[in-house]
Amino acid sequence: MDSNCRIDFQPLGRRIHTQNGANIFQVARDDRVGLASTCGGKGTCGKCKVRIVSGEVSPSDEREKRALSVEEIAQGYRLACLTKVYGDLKVEIPIESLVVAQRVQLSGEGKGTVVDPAIRAITVSLSRPSREDSRSDQVRLTEYLAENHGLADIHIDLYVQRRLSVILRQNEWRAKIALHGSEVVTAARAEDRLLGLAADLGTTSIAAYLTDLQTGEILATKGMMNPQIAYGEDVISRIAYAMDHDGEALQKTVVDGLNRLIGELCSAPGLSPDGIAEVVLVGNTAMHHLFLGLPVRQLILAPYVPAASDALYTKARDIGMAVSPGAYVHTMPNIAGFVGADHVAMLLAAGLKDTNATTIGIDIGTNTEITLSANGQLSSCSCASGPAFEGAHIKNGMRAAAGAIEKVRIDGDLVTLQTINDQPPVGLCGSGILDAVAQLLGAGIIDAMGKLKSHPCVRQTEAGKEFVLATREASGTGKDITLTEKDISEIQLAKGAIASGINILLSKANIAWHEVGQFIIAGAFGTYIDVTSAISIGMLPPLPLQRFSQVGNAAGVGAKLGLISKTQRQMAVDIARRVNYVELTSYPGYPKVYANALRFAPATNWRENG
Amino acid sequence: MDSNCRIDFQPLGRRIHTQNGANIFQVARDDRVGLASTCGGKGTCGKCKVRIVSGEVSPSDEREKRALSVEEIAQGYRLACLTKVYGDLKVEIPIESLVVAQRVQLSGEGKGTVVDPAIRAITVSLSRPSREDSRSDQVRLTEYLAENHGLADIHIDLYVQRRLSVILRQNEWRAKIALHGSEVVTAARAEDRLLGLAADLGTTSIAAYLTDLQTGEILATKGMMNPQIAYGEDVISRIAYAMDHDGEALQKTVVDGLNRLIGELCSAPGLSPDGIAEVVLVGNTAMHHLFLGLPVRQLILAPYVPAASDALYTKARDIGMAVSPGAYVHTMPNIAGFVGADHVAMLLAAGLKDTNATTIGIDIGTNTEITLSANGQLSSCSCASGPAFEGAHIKNGMRAAAGAIEKVRIDGDLVTLQTINDQPPVGLCGSGILDAVAQLLGAGIIDAMGKLKSHPCVRQTEAGKEFVLATREASGTGKDITLTEKDISEIQLAKGAIASGINILLSKANIAWHEVGQFIIAGAFGTYIDVTSAISIGMLPPLPLQRFSQVGNAAGVGAKLGLISKTQRQMAVDIARRVNYVELTSYPGYPKVYANALRFAPATNWRENG
Repeated sequence: MDSNCRIDFQPLGRRIHTQNGANIFQVARDDRVGLASTCGGKGTCGKCKVRIVSGEVSPSDEREKRALSVEEIAQGYRLACLTKVYGDLKVEIPIESLVVAQRVQLSGEGKGTVVDPAIRAITVSLSRPSREDSRSDQVRLTEYLAENHGLADIHIDLYVQRRLSVILRQNEWRAKIALHGSEVVTAARAEDRLLGLAADLGTTSIAAYLTDLQTGEILATKGMMNPQIAYGEDVISRIAYAMDHDGEALQKTVVDGLNRLIGELCSAPGLSPDGIAEVVLVGNTAMHHLFLGLPVRQLILAPYVPAASDALYTKARDIGMAVSPGAYVHTMPNIAGFVGADHVAMLLAAGLKDTNATTIGIDIGTNTEITLSANGQLSSCSCASGPAFEGAHIKNGMRAAAGAIEKVRIDGDLVTLQTINDQPPVGLCGSGILDAVAQLLGAGIIDAMGKLKSHPCVRQTEAGKEFVLATREASGTGKDITLTEKDISEIQLAKGAIASGINILLSKANIAWHEVGQFIIAGAFGTYIDVTSAISIGMLPPLPLQRFSQVGNAAGVGAKLGLISKTQRQMAVDIARRVNYVELTSYPGYPKVYANALRFAPATNWRENG
Repeated sequence: MDSNCRIDFQPLGRRIHTQNGANIFQVARDDRVGLASTCGGKGTCGKCKVRIVSGEVSPSDEREKRALSVEEIAQGYRLACLTKVYGDLKVEIPIESLVVAQRVQLSGEGKGTVVDPAIRAITVSLSRPSREDSRSDQVRLTEYLAENHGLADIHIDLYVQRRLSVILRQNEWRAKIALHGSEVVTAARAEDRLLGLAADLGTTSIAAYLTDLQTGEILATKGMMNPQIAYGEDVISRIAYAMDHDGEALQKTVVDGLNRLIGELCSAPGLSPDGIAEVVLVGNTAMHHLFLGLPVRQLILAPYVPAASDALYTKARDIGMAVSPGAYVHTMPNIAGFVGADHVAMLLAAGLKDTNATTIGIDIGTNTEITLSANGQLSSCSCASGPAFEGAHIKNGMRAAAGAIEKVRIDGDLVTLQTINDQPPVGLCGSGILDAVAQLLGAGIIDAMGKLKSHPCVRQTEAGKEFVLATREASGTGKDITLTEKDISEIQLAKGAIASGINILLSKANIAWHEVGQFIIAGAFGTYIDVTSAISIGMLPPLPLQRFSQVGNAAGVGAKLGLISKTQRQMAVDIARRVNYVELTSYPGYPKVYANALRFAPATNWRENG
């Protein structure tokens, strides 16, 4: 087969080689990408809808135009079974087209909190104007608020002012207004619901939560891939694109994506994007800057300086968000160029500020952020752990979706695999890769430098040695699924970076590893890893297991807390201000610490002295 | 001649009937519209540039495309000598194409004031980031402002934040920033000038003043017609257009016009619209609402309620103004639906708040605003005086431009005329119309009801009686210039409305006309009228002449004061709040007062009792 095109199926992270002219649906079916269909690829059921993020495909025909809406066509949606590959492609599979959805991290642990939003709703009932009382609508409202609610110096946003006159006259001079401080940011009918949106803007995926701002109730929850992925999978390549071209395309892309997500969140009756009176957003510093259209060049050049780091309030309309036009977007504070508001939100959700125990909070990803709370001090660092745990740079890597190997056990020559949804294996997700390395190490099949020894499952290929986890007979793709020495080396780089970061924070605080009383692991990957495996390869310190907690998407929880509680929002500001940021590369002993942490030698990987 | 098309030359207010297919330049030349040309209409000098505001004209040819810029063509500019009339037209003659410019009211009396602008400029010099100090640009600036200037809780506008990082890095970490309260609204190079713009947004014309915000110096001054004139000459017809269509076109039109004017004001080297850190704007309530895009429907329906009346701060970008994107537009407060911020600014400039004498301030226009200051109280009203004084609804009316009759003396059968720039007469401007009526009344040629008696210059036409001021031999247009009985009746309606307003304010305050110690007349028309004529027709009370002062464009002066002094700006807010607005039509005796004021009977037109 002439394999000259690559299709990158997102959000699964499945990369499949195929030939020019191949049918996208057939490629997906042959490689067990779980794409929905009831007609079997005849173009009649319309269920295999995908979005072409980038790359050349065949033009659409009449059947497709009938199956898709004008909007969908404009956004790049196609029916996979009627579309041919004409080059390397990025294809987004929307959640409704996946047979079994990718695990999207929407839930997460977090402490209960009192509903005390920054936005205050007031239902007003004004007197009707007359020749004797021809005060302007503005003065009529502000005087009402002064008399009935003791509010002074009220300012009405221009866009609210534009619609206020109509709302009052159509609703017997009654309205529900929302105040942000002393500013009226929305005006609606008295019976309309006041909504808020919290979002966690990740490099790979976006999670968003629609909330009733008056009750704190979560009304809807949705996730999507970050559509900026079309401009690069990681932060650095997106910043490079912004520098070579301009940041506007990236800014517009992510806002358009969020607007689509908001539209879906508000699809239930009685909900409307226009009712969203406030947005709270967290993300890493680069996502934060690209979202706000801030300059990013200085973010990736030493000394890695953010344009802005404090919590900001920005009018949603200034960044093109399709919510109530007077609404503010509150972006929670960043700590440094590589420790963003998502980490702050995680620390908030995990209650790191309140804990008396010596605690480490960690969010593992392409970039791993670590915070140590000890002796009343907070210190944070960031380490470049690379994309291996997201399945990238790994031969058979993929994200956590149906058919991904998530657990591996090796007992002599017997290899046992557990896959997501018990499907035939199609690749390895992060937790599976970690497990595989830990098991190989435990079975003595790899040495401390990560080299494969001889074993019935180890074979030599042109590209180097590899361990066969599943043969083509057992796999869902008809091809062997293997872990290569290069894959193992990627894991070494990742675990070395993380262990170095932990060690240096401990060292700066003069604390030994075993003094850590609580170890909080957040984020999509962190939720599913086997902590024992992580300990056995020397990625995490060998603390008793009960000291670890895996808290899920704590960043999203933190954003939700910031949305419904101004006390929690202020706590996030306090956390960000209190953190002492440690730049690892300027730590004198860093190269030596890193070299030691790279070895698979858990007994000597950790700092002993308090 | 087949006169089936009308050309309305603005800002002159000259309406000329001509035939379909006529050449615009020739029509203008024949009727003495002072259109510039050095080639005599051959299409070579490019000086007769005009803008087609509305209506059908011949397509442009290659010669025109060479003579005009792409921008000019896009904006509707044409060479008059290469353009034929294909229907009723509105044609704007830009100031540079007028042989003798229309009188534009840019200057005006006003009290000197201390420069104390609301915008504060600070030149900052920040430390350079390092690995040891990787604070964000935002925090670096705000901490500098806290340490060096004692400023807390500083907020940086998003658009400023977007450019700040680049400015700092290109200028050795130095910048000039401008603060509006605790918000950074611009960031520029340390050597850049900080500019401010004051504008008086009239229904007919716009006057704008470019100011150095640090010194208070006026750098440039320009006037233009209000381009909304394409949607109707008066407030009511524009509001009707906004109701039938939408207000957006009107909003965009006036902002585009202002942006052109700003471009011209900033044409000198070292000046740039981007350097304008604040705009202060006054206008009548309708112009204010149309400028901000506020709803106007309720403005012309009883009880004539403005959407907003207090002073507002709006981001310039939210209304599309091409100034520094973080800049605010401060719109001074309105008093009521028909008493706007231009009147407040006039009261501010005239110092009406400070005066101890019983004072009347009046701004005569299509709508006339009157304020009485007496016994420490301010009361205002508005009267519909109609467009007669702007030359509209008058057979040979025109605005104050070259050739307009501005003074009339009648001595027996001898009629003496004075025209602007001593050109042959082409029409009557407001002051000439007023003078003519006063002279006809003084000479006993019209009676108290405005009817023409017999006289050698009075003739009967199909449309009624008229007085011939200039015969076709003496006129510049080759046609008789006359004042008709209908014209006189228009003046009666105007003066009746004004006198009623004055009388009712006096009556409510229990003051007799002769107790008024000071009478301030503002505005374009008010500057040029002969007060004696106005008294003799009963439009103004017969006070000793030294009690009157004609102060020119006091609204523009008030806007300038508000721009360079926050004390003055606050005074305007105080004035607007203190004013007691009197709705004339709900005053019980109004019909009787008005009926009496309509008569040409100055001796009985005024309220006698204190």
